[in-house]
Amino acid sequence: DGTLVNTMEDFDNAVANAQPGDVIVLANGVWEDAELLFEGNGTKEKPITLTVEEKGKVSLEGASNLRMAGQYLHVEGLVFKNGFTPTTEVISFKKDRNSFAINSRVTECVIDDYNNPERHEPDTWVAIYGKNNRVDHNHLVGKRNRGVTMIVRLNGKEHQENHHKIDHNYFGPRPNLGSNGGETLRIGTSHFSRTNSNTLVEANYFDQCDGEHEIISNKSGQNTYKNNVFYECIGTLTMRHGEGTLVDGNVFIGNGKPSTGGIRVINGKQTVTNNYGIGLTGYRFRGAFVIMNGIYNSPINRYDQAKDAVVKNNTFINCDHVQLCAGADAERNAPPENCVVADNIFYNEKRDNLFTVYDDISGINFQNNIISPNVNSISESGFTKLELELEENENGLLVPADATLKTGAKLSSEIATKQNTGVSWYSKKTSDVLLSSGKTIQVAAGLNSLFEAVESSEPGDILELDSGEPYTLTKSIAIKHPLTFRGTTGNKAKILFEKKSLFEIQNGGSLSLENIIFDGEASPDRTGNSVITTSKYSMNKNYKLFVDNCDFVNLDVNHSYDAIRVYKNTFADTISIKNSRFKTISGNVIALDKETDDIGIYNAEYVILKNNVFNGVGGAVLRLHRGGKDESTFGPFLQMAHNVLDNVGHDKRNKYGAAVSLYGVQEIDIKNNIFDNSKGINMHLVVGEPIVKVANNNFYRSDKLEVTGDQKYTVENLWSLSPGFM
Amino acid sequence: DGTLVNTMEDFDNAVANAQPGDVIVLANGVWEDAELLFEGNGTKEKPITLTVEEKGKVSLEGASNLRMAGQYLHVEGLVFKNGFTPTTEVISFKKDRNSFAINSRVTECVIDDYNNPERHEPDTWVAIYGKNNRVDHNHLVGKRNRGVTMIVRLNGKEHQENHHKIDHNYFGPRPNLGSNGGETLRIGTSHFSRTNSNTLVEANYFDQCDGEHEIISNKSGQNTYKNNVFYECIGTLTMRHGEGTLVDGNVFIGNGKPSTGGIRVINGKQTVTNNYGIGLTGYRFRGAFVIMNGIYNSPINRYDQAKDAVVKNNTFINCDHVQLCAGADAERNAPPENCVVADNIFYNEKRDNLFTVYDDISGINFQNNIISPNVNSISESGFTKLELELEENENGLLVPADATLKTGAKLSSEIATKQNTGVSWYSKKTSDVLLSSGKTIQVAAGLNSLFEAVESSEPGDILELDSGEPYTLTKSIAIKHPLTFRGTTGNKAKILFEKKSLFEIQNGGSLSLENIIFDGEASPDRTGNSVITTSKYSMNKNYKLFVDNCDFVNLDVNHSYDAIRVYKNTFADTISIKNSRFKTISGNVIALDKETDDIGIYNAEYVILKNNVFNGVGGAVLRLHRGGKDESTFGPFLQMAHNVLDNVGHDKRNKYGAAVSLYGVQEIDIKNNIFDNSKGINMHLVVGEPIVKVANNNFYRSDKLEVTGDQKYTVENLWSLSPGFM
Ligand SMILES: [Ca+2]
Ligand SMILES: [Ca+2]
Repeated sequence: DGTLVNTMEDFDNAVANAQPGDVIVLANGVWEDAELLFEGNGTKEKPITLTVEEKGKVSLEGASNLRMAGQYLHVEGLVFKNGFTPTTEVISFKKDRNSFAINSRVTECVIDDYNNPERHEPDTWVAIYGKNNRVDHNHLVGKRNRGVTMIVRLNGKEHQENHHKIDHNYFGPRPNLGSNGGETLRIGTSHFSRTNSNTLVEANYFDQCDGEHEIISNKSGQNTYKNNVFYECIGTLTMRHGEGTLVDGNVFIGNGKPSTGGIRVINGKQTVTNNYGIGLTGYRFRGAFVIMNGIYNSPINRYDQAKDAVVKNNTFINCDHVQLCAGADAERNAPPENCVVADNIFYNEKRDNLFTVYDDISGINFQNNIISPNVNSISESGFTKLELELEENENGLLVPADATLKTGAKLSSEIATKQNTGVSWYSKKTSDVLLSSGKTIQVAAGLNSLFEAVESSEPGDILELDSGEPYTLTKSIAIKHPLTFRGTTGNKAKILFEKKSLFEIQNGGSLSLENIIFDGEASPDRTGNSVITTSKYSMNKNYKLFVDNCDFVNLDVNHSYDAIRVYKNTFADTISIKNSRFKTISGNVIALDKETDDIGIYNAEYVILKNNVFNGVGGAVLRLHRGGKDESTFGPFLQMAHNVLDNVGHDKRNKYGAAVSLYGVQEIDIKNNIFDNSKGINMHLVVGEPIVKVANNNFYRSDKLEVTGDQKYTVENLWSLSPGFM
Repeated sequence: DGTLVNTMEDFDNAVANAQPGDVIVLANGVWEDAELLFEGNGTKEKPITLTVEEKGKVSLEGASNLRMAGQYLHVEGLVFKNGFTPTTEVISFKKDRNSFAINSRVTECVIDDYNNPERHEPDTWVAIYGKNNRVDHNHLVGKRNRGVTMIVRLNGKEHQENHHKIDHNYFGPRPNLGSNGGETLRIGTSHFSRTNSNTLVEANYFDQCDGEHEIISNKSGQNTYKNNVFYECIGTLTMRHGEGTLVDGNVFIGNGKPSTGGIRVINGKQTVTNNYGIGLTGYRFRGAFVIMNGIYNSPINRYDQAKDAVVKNNTFINCDHVQLCAGADAERNAPPENCVVADNIFYNEKRDNLFTVYDDISGINFQNNIISPNVNSISESGFTKLELELEENENGLLVPADATLKTGAKLSSEIATKQNTGVSWYSKKTSDVLLSSGKTIQVAAGLNSLFEAVESSEPGDILELDSGEPYTLTKSIAIKHPLTFRGTTGNKAKILFEKKSLFEIQNGGSLSLENIIFDGEASPDRTGNSVITTSKYSMNKNYKLFVDNCDFVNLDVNHSYDAIRVYKNTFADTISIKNSRFKTISGNVIALDKETDDIGIYNAEYVILKNNVFNGVGGAVLRLHRGGKDESTFGPFLQMAHNVLDNVGHDKRNKYGAAVSLYGVQEIDIKNNIFDNSKGINMHLVVGEPIVKVANNNFYRSDKLEVTGDQKYTVENLWSLSPGFM
């Protein structure tokens, strides 16, 4: 029953005439470019409902969105996919700045990969205004562009002390944005952060929400986070601004994934009770549990001091970092004050240095906490070393076997699960395909034979090349899905190519190259060639690039020929180059420095260079740049080991003045490399207390290590020995 | 008659079975993604012909191209449009590196706007290999991406001393590429430049070929350029490499357009006779006539000394620059040797300093040249000052009225015209639409009313706004064609907008803004907003942006908010900002510095800032960057006059350290500006002998002018006075 509408005109008419108790039903099918304005006044007993003919059979696609205004509106069953909103919001509890919805509910809606193709063009999927609204049982998966997934706005009295309820939503995987602006849930903004929101966030499931280091950014007062589960999410539930928030009964499951975190406390009167964390690896602001230093009389957009916090009955099992007074520096010099940390369990038999203390912790009153016997204590009292027997509970979580223990968290039976959140009628499986997971295709040499093989390939396929005649290409190969190119025989296969670049990794593509020679001999006599590039356009899907046992040779027909070239608005989860040889290259091997706005955006998370020989490279082997002062991101991370750099960096166009040039990199591990007749390494260390180790490197007839910036680092065994064999 | 083919399969069969004398006929219609391989052996008497059913009714679109191999092949009537070649060539006289075409002809073919959307992805439209080929009566218009329009390759004996004939082609308008690689015709490459090509280039019409400063790049020996007409082309016919070329009977018509040039002589044994130039304004390498300095024992890719040149019977009327020993510097220190410049006319009554001499001209034997009486002579003998009566000849060119005069050029009646070149069956009209040339549309204020008006607008339209309620936008406006936004009443109209940017100029768009207030008050609280941006994607069409009498205010909701933001691979012909006010801006007004590869590419040709007030701008008012050492381009050009800069440049994120920051700009004219409590101007002067004047500027409580680099400049009246009114 209800009014079945088939067109936008029908819909608008139905809305215009809707009376309390009316039900407007979107007909099955695809609604293209449907900008729905649902405006009306229902009553508590008789709301006006917008729903669908059959759940899962109605989708809003293209440039669609929904605005709501009025009261007692009920929205159910909409699916947004295959497109993106032309405005800044997909589902909005407002029509314009003066009209919004109260006492309304959005339930069982799906927003799936509904993303602006421009990675850094921001929008929000669900924007909650007004008061007393409920957003529940929605399925929100795959947000890939900038902007918070769900947001509660407090811009005005009409939106404050709102008593919204956000419950039983499924927040599905959100990949690393490589920038601030990748929060999954935010309540408030710094501007209104000393205002109370009184929002309840209960029993939501956060599944691999990896957008940035604030999974939740709490920026207002008196909110409650209860019985939520955070499964393999990198980052933390962050009490960024506002006072009097309660974080109770939440579960954080890291499974040892890098940068997974728990709870971060800032500001006054926060209560953290009954939470449970396991296998969380995150460090610094991403610790399993973090209390930050604040600023005396902080500006509203900086860091209020942590005062009067109550942290009781929480359990952290096999987590790597508890961080106290985190972020202490010349500005953030106000340590926690009048805080209680009591009746908690911090248990990790493999990690003695579980706690890091950055400033004075005398303002924290530690009482009756249990730590594993190995853990170094940080206080004369308040911690008891106790060996606990652990066992799995009914949810598979390791908990103390002794049920009578009063210390640690008591978990509710009401916590979120993947099953009891979101909707039952829309799959929670991911469609991501792994590299080399598909079929194997033999490709014979021949003009553009590889191009044609790629055209008919499917995601995950492996293209096998042999070592006979070279493969020749007069066309560039677009990598639109994960593909592997592999030379099969003992000798490497060889590829010659006539376009400006051989491979272009496009949105959705990833590339693995094994046992192949890339010879630049047939490249056009122009500047700016490269063997591999990313798309020149924005990519909102992160890519991977693996190079193993390959040769890149004769990349010198003209100047500025790079082995790999990336573009702005692209982001690699991993770039790994191993066991390969780079010989005679006029440009760089790889410059990851296209985000020049210096607002905390960068081009790659993990960069790995192992066991390679770089010989006669005019530019740099690596430039890795992460500009800006923002602390919201994780990487970039660099591992560089067992490489030989011979005659690298001497071209007059090498603007980095180094063979390896690093700026703002967050983790640097450079070991066992040999530099001969080469430029050296420069690194500018800023932002985020980077972890920097440089050890056992030999700089012979070469520039050495030059460090600038204001952060710490360690250098060991910097040699200058002739690398010739004896 | 002939074999009518309807499909690619038919075509391939017909080609496989073709005998001398056969005619293969492409059926009328659109051939999509047709990669034709035309391979066969005709005879001199019985060529194999590839033609079309009806001329103008067959087009090759999408990813199409043509390769030829064999001998006595005749191609006629193909039209390439609406797409671009997937390889590096559209029409190629080769199949692969071992098979090419000889004794063949391509005639009456059209290539129209057949461009890779990636501006700097290079390709060539017609690539001539082999020997004794003729390319004639083709129509080639609108090449917008990088790469030479037509090229003769000499890579191997089989392609040298080729005796190709290139005649009666219509080379239609080619816009400024803003980079090297925009040549219209190139014969040879530096690598084979000491080899003879023996190509005849006769009676071609070059119509506004403005790609770069080499209209023709001659890079081989013993070519002939005869009776060609260059109509309003910027740049020159450049004898870049190779000896023994003849340039005879060509006509260069500048009509006073900036940077139009004539002939540039480098290398040995060049002959320049009977050429005619009028109204050419180009300077330095773009002079009406130029002899360059060379390098003793030059590397093959640099500059051989000009030796044994014969420059006789040429006429230059009302041209601005004749440049002798141009490019003289520490490297190019070999002046011309054993050259004759005789019987020429250099006539310009308005320009006394017609000649510029950069080095020793004793190696040039001047004889019997006529100059207008006002012109400053550069030699004690060889020039006669003579007042000439000029009259229009039958082609509308000003020539001496005295027909018996032996001095100067005798023009052939065989010269190219727009009519006798190209094909008769394809229009030579351009489809470009000017700003404000369309209809006027009144737009009332209202949520997204401007967005909707733009959606239904046509190129050239004017959208009129009134000064009542503000115009509010929750969507970004894509500018896909030339559009004008104009506040009509005395008070300015006001626009508020909620997206990251208000206007995005996309490929094909241009924008004019008049009498409007752009208020950033409703912008998202995120970094990196802007009022106007270009496309983030490549634009292969140049755009224009005019701002007149507008206000840009409150652009400070977060940091790095720019008034105007451009992206890589975009190019503005003109950005003009006049009579406008910029107040409270956290980022830059405009940073034209996205081409960071430093290979001679830049973002805007003409930048004009006049009569503006900049007040409280955190970043720079202007950053203009042109990196690299390449000398192939014209701009950027900057005019900055009568502006007030008050409190500009002090934000800590202003990475330019200046209010105005210039790098590699080719013409700088900064006059009558007032700086108060601001950062100053920095300019790095490199490459291309820039013309730099800075005069009558007041730097009060401000940084001043900082100049680096190795080029000349003039500064006058640099004041430091209180700018308050008395
Ligand atoms: Ca954040
Ligand atoms: Ca050039």
